[in-house]
Amino acid sequence: MPRLKLVVAYTGTQFQGWQVQPGGARTVQGCLQEVLSTICSHKVHVPGSGRTDSGVHALGQVAHADVPEKRRNVPWVRALNRMLPEDVAVREANYVSSEFHAQYSAREKEYIYTLWTHPDYVLPQNRPFVWWVPKLQSELMQEAVPILEGTHDYAAFQNMGTPVANTVRTIRCIQFLIQENRIDCRFVANGFLKQMVRNMMAALVAVGTGRMSLEQLQALLEKKDRRIGPATAPARGLTLARVMY
Amino acid sequence: MPRLKLVVAYTGTQFQGWQVQPGGARTVQGCLQEVLSTICSHKVHVPGSGRTDSGVHALGQVAHADVPEKRRNVPWVRALNRMLPEDVAVREANYVSSEFHAQYSAREKEYIYTLWTHPDYVLPQNRPFVWWVPKLQSELMQEAVPILEGTHDYAAFQNMGTPVANTVRTIRCIQFLIQENRIDCRFVANGFLKQMVRNMMAALVAVGTGRMSLEQLQALLEKKDRRIGPATAPARGLTLARVMY
Repeated sequence: MPRLKLVVAYTGTQFQGWQVQPGGARTVQGCLQEVLSTICSHKVHVPGSGRTDSGVHALGQVAHADVPEKRRNVPWVRALNRMLPEDVAVREANYVSSEFHAQYSAREKEYIYTLWTHPDYVLPQNRPFVWWVPKLQSELMQEAVPILEGTHDYAAFQNMGTPVANTVRTIRCIQFLIQENRIDCRFVANGFLKQMVRNMMAALVAVGTGRMSLEQLQALLEKKDRRIGPATAPARGLTLARVMY
Repeated sequence: MPRLKLVVAYTGTQFQGWQVQPGGARTVQGCLQEVLSTICSHKVHVPGSGRTDSGVHALGQVAHADVPEKRRNVPWVRALNRMLPEDVAVREANYVSSEFHAQYSAREKEYIYTLWTHPDYVLPQNRPFVWWVPKLQSELMQEAVPILEGTHDYAAFQNMGTPVANTVRTIRCIQFLIQENRIDCRFVANGFLKQMVRNMMAALVAVGTGRMSLEQLQALLEKKDRRIGPATAPARGLTLARVMY
């Protein structure tokens, strides 16, 4: 069967995350599977590049789906968007080799975490997509970047209770795009542990607000102990921007 | 009593417009009056520069409120934002002369109407703030601008069933900021009739999609007959950007 690679955008506010769950929670994967299954007249599974948590957004989540040969000429982007709810959109749909796998073929991922820095208010138009952190010193955050970039065991930034065999990852870059009232923090890595970006963001904000020293951040990384890190940053500030293959 | 000038931003999606209505509909003015009345310990009225319809957004709506002398030193922006819901924010609060009136002192207003022009999808992050019009020829819309700019009787663009004494207004400029996938249409005038921007936008889009000629637009303006114009553009694309005094 022909394999489709889908690039998907969504706002996570009204979803219980990407992944289909038992019990019928509203999920992005569930929406896509429902619509694709309807068009294909049989059950279609739509594996994604990875889960996103409840409330996390995406501009470039990637998934794949095998569709029947007789549906090869469906104009997929338009057909899917006509049936999807307003908070999900398929941006691209292209046929790929049957060896392509949205999760296992992924080489790198890019996440953007957006901080809102105005001292007095959050613009309602931006509210669903930001974490409000007034009084942030971005210079301090910048100094913390070399500690977190590189190849490390990031167990200290992994959500508790979700053990994985290998917690070593390579973060290729962490960059801050500083704009009026907001800072877009970009994280590119060969993979991320569960809630790793949100836990790193929380630590970077702790440094940027003077609640954590660079030495403490270094110690947190080395001790590999999530319990001594700050509380996880809110989901709403996080967007899966891109998956690279 | 000291008079406060408030600059207010909101997303209109969850509001039944600006103006307080009988029956307890959720309105922006209602939210502001409730919060101000709580802080002042008595009923405070908050007149705005004008109504915005249900679903219309604002970045710079202006309102005024008289507050008791003993509350003069309240840090208004923070105090109000602490109590307001997430879809309203007070951006500025400054004391002005008691002769200032949010509606009657207004000299000009600026509205932005945002069109989304991608052929295949609307990005969910933008969906609440745009009207999706694929296949738009902005050059055609541009040619229609001189017909609508200037001092005219705009009765043809006024919502039916809401007669006002004088339907002459002066539109100082209509500009299109063309970006990737979107066009921000800016309207500046000394005043707008009810749904005037949305009705002008509908006519401009009719021109830009080839459904209305420039001659027909000219005739629509001259005939002053709303019934021969196209259906009103959706509220969600419209934002009250600024009120000038």
